Amino acid sequence: MNWDAGAVDTLVQRLALPQPVFVTQPNMPDLGDYHRMLEKIWDRKWLTNDGQFHQEFERRLAAQLKVEHINLFCNGALALLVALQALRINSGEVITTPFTFPATPHVLWWNNIRPVFCDIDPVTYNLDPKGIEQHIRPETRAILPVHVFGTPCDVEAIQAIADRHGLQVIYDAAHAFGVRYKGRSITEHGDLSMLSFHATKLFTSIEGGALVSRSDQLRTRINFLKNFGIANEETVIAPGINGKMNEFQAAFGLLQLDMVDAEIARRAKLTQIYRDGLSGLPGITLAKTPPDVEPNYAYFPMLVDEAKYGASRDELHAALKRFNINSRKYFYPLCSHFPCYAALPSARPENLPVAERVASQVLCLPLYGNLADDAAATLCTIVRELHALLKESPHG
Amino acid sequence: MNWDAGAVDTLVQRLALPQPVFVTQPNMPDLGDYHRMLEKIWDRKWLTNDGQFHQEFERRLAAQLKVEHINLFCNGALALLVALQALRINSGEVITTPFTFPATPHVLWWNNIRPVFCDIDPVTYNLDPKGIEQHIRPETRAILPVHVFGTPCDVEAIQAIADRHGLQVIYDAAHAFGVRYKGRSITEHGDLSMLSFHATKLFTSIEGGALVSRSDQLRTRINFLKNFGIANEETVIAPGINGKMNEFQAAFGLLQLDMVDAEIARRAKLTQIYRDGLSGLPGITLAKTPPDVEPNYAYFPMLVDEAKYGASRDELHAALKRFNINSRKYFYPLCSHFPCYAALPSARPENLPVAERVASQVLCLPLYGNLADDAAATLCTIVRELHALLKESPHG
Repeated sequence: MNWDAGAVDTLVQRLALPQPVFVTQPNMPDLGDYHRMLEKIWDRKWLTNDGQFHQEFERRLAAQLKVEHINLFCNGALALLVALQALRINSGEVITTPFTFPATPHVLWWNNIRPVFCDIDPVTYNLDPKGIEQHIRPETRAILPVHVFGTPCDVEAIQAIADRHGLQVIYDAAHAFGVRYKGRSITEHGDLSMLSFHATKLFTSIEGGALVSRSDQLRTRINFLKNFGIANEETVIAPGINGKMNEFQAAFGLLQLDMVDAEIARRAKLTQIYRDGLSGLPGITLAKTPPDVEPNYAYFPMLVDEAKYGASRDELHAALKRFNINSRKYFYPLCSHFPCYAALPSARPENLPVAERVASQVLCLPLYGNLADDAAATLCTIVRELHALLKESPHG
Repeated sequence: MNWDAGAVDTLVQRLALPQPVFVTQPNMPDLGDYHRMLEKIWDRKWLTNDGQFHQEFERRLAAQLKVEHINLFCNGALALLVALQALRINSGEVITTPFTFPATPHVLWWNNIRPVFCDIDPVTYNLDPKGIEQHIRPETRAILPVHVFGTPCDVEAIQAIADRHGLQVIYDAAHAFGVRYKGRSITEHGDLSMLSFHATKLFTSIEGGALVSRSDQLRTRINFLKNFGIANEETVIAPGINGKMNEFQAAFGLLQLDMVDAEIARRAKLTQIYRDGLSGLPGITLAKTPPDVEPNYAYFPMLVDEAKYGASRDELHAALKRFNINSRKYFYPLCSHFPCYAALPSARPENLPVAERVASQVLCLPLYGNLADDAAATLCTIVRELHALLKESPHG
């Protein structure tokens, strides 16, 4: 690090935020509203297993996302675990991205599938379709791309490859709640899409997740699989698991449905403040919204190029903490670095140059509705002034 | 069925309960108390991932059960899934019982393990130690017994077999919350024990579960595995899964801790009513509490011997519905009958004669604190009078 300690101290005194700024924070519904829903749960004494709120949440969620077939889950990882089982993808290889949350390759592992890591696109940070075909072998069963930060993958190119080779496509759309592409929900692409409603997500049901599928038959099969494969009181059709969402989560999710548009609008405004405040800064690369996309502003990732900015991503991440600002190295490290995957041929860093660079440079800034405009603006000032200090430093 | 339709109609008119009696119903905490806990969640805006209620619940649960090492889970199936992974039981065979909920063999399947079904004891309905050794082969990794209905397995005999053959023992203690054997928690036996806190259980956290283990090292490993193998912000040690319990479940569980002793006492009283009302009835076999056991009265199973009672279990189950009484064929069918396991050599009915008979005869009667004494007494009267009708019938 080339910062002059005294100069940073002075900057901290001038610009540090009085309260800690988190990376994210859930948008809480009105507690009174939630209490009124709990009264119904107390009346019904029905806490889980396809309760009334569960049914209502599934119905209203489908309507709001404008999709037909949806299954709720206790969390996104279980949804993805069951998605693979539902499509009988339980051996061989699946092509995926290393630039994702551990859940993505881990659910492959749990389904006896070897992940094959493929490099990412330098602009969208998503699985690069150009790299997919070289990895296809007789053992390949499917492609599991991720709409990272809610930015849609190149769904047409991926589907064309899948069709040419007879592969299935499952999208990890954990980040992509509400994202639309060419006027349709992004979850309408591929054979199945998984949404996550974890507390750190734009839209949350405490923990939670969902699968969006293409047919009522598949939806029915998924319903069995998420409840131990139980088809009725005396019939178990398959070795399913417990992936059920309970009534307390469903009630929370129902209230969030009415709040998510305002949350997206609020994050859009903060995104604009960040873009205005950080664009043009040397060594800082901001993400762009691709054409035909209605984004959800779920995250604000940026890349820090040490050679041009003057400090590394890790140094900036640590420096921001001194200003009471939490940012997140998301995703770092790459999944291909985890000990359980690092020995795979496809995990070699030389085969994943873009992903390696992005993972070493990416920093997600705080982004959530309750974040004050002023805090976002001050964050930009801090990043700019830290850069200015580096230029002024004799070692800079 | 040998019942005279008109005679049963008359009995229904005389004895049918005015409100439906369920098989079980959760004991709801005071909604006001729960609301006060939610206020804290709303203040903290921390919904999951080892929150304050989660920490408090884990601590108080360990104290109440008098066990040292405990990990909470979103549900019992995920707890058992991770238990096997934690012990690296991920191939070969595990000896278990077919007389259990589907979760038991299914978590073996998810860990690439072939279940080997072993017959049960005719008195306790638990894995019969006498049948275990004939199933031990080089591929055998562990024994997975179930404390069915909360009745302890023959833990000494099972441990002696495990020690002799170098096998691990994992107990499915889903039914056994609070059960003590020779003064200690039953969960202190084996390498790991799994508890379930599903809404249908004596003690519930909406959905939920826990693992009780023997060492702090194992507890730490389980904590990683239930959160994707994440050891810290930049280290993922293994392909874990999302098995996390959220704050809303933990808050519910905390309140239940203060209620469970009264719930057990209430169920003990109802159990006595059932025992007084049904004992001595031809063809009805009631379960017994083995010596040295402090039971939890979680279930009231009985066996219906058609030849002696005059009607089959299925006929009695159907007849009780006419009196507004729900009972449960629990467990029926045996797990060894599910299509995913039926082809295994150990699943052959001729190898599991006791389990086959018990599954065809067992009926669990309604049992929960809110069940009125009168309803339980009337149920006994109905079962007795139905038997009397059969004796009187010219076809009886």
